[in-house]
Amino acid sequence: MIGVDWGTTSFRAFRIARDGTIRDRRVALRGLLNVPDNRFADTLREEIGPWLAAGEQHVLLAGMIGSRQGWKEAPYLSCPAGAREVADCLVDIEFDWGQVKLVPGLSAADEAGVAEVMRGEETQVFGVLGAMGHSALACLPGTHSKWVKVEHGRIIRFTTHMTGETFGALCGHTILGRMMREGPAGGEPFDEGVRRSRDPGGLLHHIFGARSLVLAGQLAETDAQAYLSGILIGHEVRAALPAEPGQVVHTIGAPELTVLYARAISACGGYPERHDGEAAARGLALIGGHATWR
Amino acid sequence: MIGVDWGTTSFRAFRIARDGTIRDRRVALRGLLNVPDNRFADTLREEIGPWLAAGEQHVLLAGMIGSRQGWKEAPYLSCPAGAREVADCLVDIEFDWGQVKLVPGLSAADEAGVAEVMRGEETQVFGVLGAMGHSALACLPGTHSKWVKVEHGRIIRFTTHMTGETFGALCGHTILGRMMREGPAGGEPFDEGVRRSRDPGGLLHHIFGARSLVLAGQLAETDAQAYLSGILIGHEVRAALPAEPGQVVHTIGAPELTVLYARAISACGGYPERHDGEAAARGLALIGGHATWR
Repeated sequence: MIGVDWGTTSFRAFRIARDGTIRDRRVALRGLLNVPDNRFADTLREEIGPWLAAGEQHVLLAGMIGSRQGWKEAPYLSCPAGAREVADCLVDIEFDWGQVKLVPGLSAADEAGVAEVMRGEETQVFGVLGAMGHSALACLPGTHSKWVKVEHGRIIRFTTHMTGETFGALCGHTILGRMMREGPAGGEPFDEGVRRSRDPGGLLHHIFGARSLVLAGQLAETDAQAYLSGILIGHEVRAALPAEPGQVVHTIGAPELTVLYARAISACGGYPERHDGEAAARGLALIGGHATWR
Repeated sequence: MIGVDWGTTSFRAFRIARDGTIRDRRVALRGLLNVPDNRFADTLREEIGPWLAAGEQHVLLAGMIGSRQGWKEAPYLSCPAGAREVADCLVDIEFDWGQVKLVPGLSAADEAGVAEVMRGEETQVFGVLGAMGHSALACLPGTHSKWVKVEHGRIIRFTTHMTGETFGALCGHTILGRMMREGPAGGEPFDEGVRRSRDPGGLLHHIFGARSLVLAGQLAETDAQAYLSGILIGHEVRAALPAEPGQVVHTIGAPELTVLYARAISACGGYPERHDGEAAARGLALIGGHATWR
């Protein structure tokens, strides 16, 4: 089968063997925002045409491609949901060169009953089920980080944290960015920011330190960005980690992000276990295995 | 004397009688950013020329005009500091049509020892000393809100919260803003945001609700901005208010902001006492009264 993780900015396709091994892969900057005139069918054919010609027929798409802004809307499925429930709710798409199905996103409510949605992350979480016990916690860092509670192979609930997007807005559009110069993303200033997130005063106060410490000569302009990143990720991790220490957190995503989150999780008393971005391919294979193909 | 609250965007001048009453006032959008080629002397003369001609000679300037980006830098004075200490550290400026002095900003460290700075807010706080007891807490909401601890007429310490600027960056430069439409600033959605700030999950999680609740049809697009504002102000107030309830908070600033802060402070168990923007004039009069003029 062919599995595609099709998001807002990128398109990642995998040719997957019956036993789940990845036979081939393609990555392109052809996310939703980069597909002109909604030419999704043409884009898909251009990217995976050779694999279709080689005999593949089953194509499974996950991610924002199934949103209202995507090819076709696949309604959210309510949690709890596992790969089997998701496979039962795939949405068919017209495509002349093969069978294409969309993975639905998931909806849930947080502890206070506030609505939550995800699209694509559920597939990545299913991709690391093999490494999880009966009960597990996963963290998928990014523009909108997700923290996902898994029990017996099903996603029970999750929360979104706008950490990446807030970081970008603060660096690009507030006085904090004006004092920053290019520098390393991790290291001691990042750790210092994570430590800072434990202090009283709250996030809106802590972030001002990325300015006041520079003014006071106690933070280099080249370290301010890493310090701010540490404050924000520290706040996210502290809010999302259970109070009791020792929680294992399966961290799934791009290495440059999961390495920072792993540092923050450790600093906050958790045990990070890092997984790579191929989790999506394994999740697509799992869902595709449960699906009913013609 | 003449007192001027001269900030980044606005210029507010007061002609003050010997007994502290305000005889006249001028407001202009001639803040630092709007003064071409650093023509501060010309700007000042144009604005207060008639008062100088009428015999005023003593001119006291407070605010960002004393920063590195302003007319002349007035070094920060360390807390604790009262109006008398500030008056002892005024910085003289060359001006052919009168005696001009700059009020220095204040520096401090928060509970964790992180550097803090303010410029202009100290003068507003001194302006409401008359309404304060021996020990008081003041809140000056804005782009960079300040919470100021006052004891026996002196500013002991303070913290900055980047609430206003973060709100602007989130509305203008994240996905949250794309779902928002013009609506009222306060009301029930604001209060709901303040309540939300009490829930577990943290600020970076709560703000996502301004999107997910709209997606779920539980929040109107015209209410999303007020809800987000309530979340951010709620987080600021909860972090800055002492744990024990019943704290009186002197809220100083523009009425459209202090009315929102008063709602949030009440909801979080504090007692707001609102003061208007003329606090700056009264503070300038107090400092000017302690100053040594030629």
